[in-house]
Amino acid sequence: MKTIIGVDVGGTWLRAARFDEELNLLERAEQETRTELGGDIVFDRLVETIRQVLPESPNDLLGIGLVLPGPIDPYAGILIAPPNLPWKEMPIASMVQQAVGGPVFIGNDADMAGLAEHQLGAGRGTRYMIYVTVSTGVGSGIIIDGRPYVGCGQAGEAGHMVVNPNGPLCGCGKRGHLEAYSSGTGIARIARERLAAGEESSVRDRVGGNLPEVTSRIVGEEAMKGDPMALDIITQAGHYLGVAVASLMVLFNPERFIFGGGVSQLGDLLFKPLHKAVQEYVIHPIYWQKTQIVLAQLREDVGLYGGAALVRVMRREE
Amino acid sequence: MKTIIGVDVGGTWLRAARFDEELNLLERAEQETRTELGGDIVFDRLVETIRQVLPESPNDLLGIGLVLPGPIDPYAGILIAPPNLPWKEMPIASMVQQAVGGPVFIGNDADMAGLAEHQLGAGRGTRYMIYVTVSTGVGSGIIIDGRPYVGCGQAGEAGHMVVNPNGPLCGCGKRGHLEAYSSGTGIARIARERLAAGEESSVRDRVGGNLPEVTSRIVGEEAMKGDPMALDIITQAGHYLGVAVASLMVLFNPERFIFGGGVSQLGDLLFKPLHKAVQEYVIHPIYWQKTQIVLAQLREDVGLYGGAALVRVMRREE
Repeated sequence: MKTIIGVDVGGTWLRAARFDEELNLLERAEQETRTELGGDIVFDRLVETIRQVLPESPNDLLGIGLVLPGPIDPYAGILIAPPNLPWKEMPIASMVQQAVGGPVFIGNDADMAGLAEHQLGAGRGTRYMIYVTVSTGVGSGIIIDGRPYVGCGQAGEAGHMVVNPNGPLCGCGKRGHLEAYSSGTGIARIARERLAAGEESSVRDRVGGNLPEVTSRIVGEEAMKGDPMALDIITQAGHYLGVAVASLMVLFNPERFIFGGGVSQLGDLLFKPLHKAVQEYVIHPIYWQKTQIVLAQLREDVGLYGGAALVRVMRREE
Repeated sequence: MKTIIGVDVGGTWLRAARFDEELNLLERAEQETRTELGGDIVFDRLVETIRQVLPESPNDLLGIGLVLPGPIDPYAGILIAPPNLPWKEMPIASMVQQAVGGPVFIGNDADMAGLAEHQLGAGRGTRYMIYVTVSTGVGSGIIIDGRPYVGCGQAGEAGHMVVNPNGPLCGCGKRGHLEAYSSGTGIARIARERLAAGEESSVRDRVGGNLPEVTSRIVGEEAMKGDPMALDIITQAGHYLGVAVASLMVLFNPERFIFGGGVSQLGDLLFKPLHKAVQEYVIHPIYWQKTQIVLAQLREDVGLYGGAALVRVMRREE
């Protein structure tokens, strides 16, 4: 039976799974990454993990899809400079292919989560869709004609769109990006700054006044309970997501937006201001009347499914 | 000999031309649109103009490409609600096909200008490019894999991206769009507002104090001569074009941006602040170091060439 291997390469876990051609997950393996052991050993651990799920005959292998933290060069198969892995400018696709066979394809994690949603989740049946994950950072995956759109290799970074040129600094060092307002990191940072400036909030009580302990989860929970400062910060996060969606609608005019990631679980607190901003900023109702905004359906194994889906897409194009 | 017809349908002129398969222009015809005569008569005039350049044998016709002011539905062949033409919700593709033969394809003017630049102008050889016309409005045409990208039909409206959510109202009625700052209309409006508020400027002398006579051309000319207010307005127009390009780079990661339209002729006055803003707002130099920003090469007949190029692209896909 022809099989596909999906591999999720993260800073904490290395995971691999074998799939059939319909992307049913047949078998999985995982181990801790343990980046402290250094690049060579972590690569050996990755190969080991993949070997555990390889088909018995190399002839049965349709391909291996590696899902990696960006930035990557998907055309050259190179991992550029992942913040949480002990590798740099590494030709990981050819290295894995040499070790365990192939062909090997690579994609970045947000793009592949978007592809998995397109093939198996909330994006099924669409021709044009945009997946946005609002988590520690804000990532996105753009699907055009059923394929992940990467442009010259690094497209689809909606977290680093400018949503307010006079806004706060983003984690990347530049000003006014979506991620500075709406990511978990951004939400926590804004809360800490407002508390440090003396604002009253139940978020302060939650951390016993110890500001470094403020997280976006705590801000979200206090917003749910009605704390005004927390509510305002989550409303602002939703507002700027809406500003970004407004621009994405007129640029890409997709059928559907799919929101994943922990911050997206805040429900109306986040999505009401999002929808309001979309209607406030989009040139014409034709854009938002026809465009669905829904939640992602896949959970933990989204990386494994994304890697497997990438193999299927790439092999179909040959 | 197989031939293609390109047709440029404008509020002032109806133009049609016959091309060979290599997009050499063989013969052209034109007449005034005269919208005051009403929809039926203007349609007859359009058909008449096309007939003048049709090949003798219908078998030689590869197709007709109509270039229309947006918004349109390119899949259904429908002209939705052009501001300068006496038609609304009109199935223009099938109507023209019935009158003169076909197949007939339609595209909007900015998308088709982008396609013409891709096939014959400054975009040749690129796989991913973005054409931006900075004129009365700001329009754009996005080329992906050699085809105009339209998404669900209305994609690629970079003029209506949000570049400053607290910015001035755009001509479309929504706030902070690129077009509100950087279009000819936006530049003239901002100059009028600043003059009305009492600011000193040689622009005031140029119109004898008659503010409605202020145009972006006058503002550009006075900026060239060093008038501080005019310089500031053009610098701001360039800055916000750069903010938009910064977002477009991380979203589409194209090989090349191509700038057309009258305002793009302002040279360094516009492009220095544009490049400065790009470097200020893009997450990583990898995006702008590899991406060219150049001027358009085609002039008046860009619509005719765009229509013909559309036919060639669509027929190749069949």
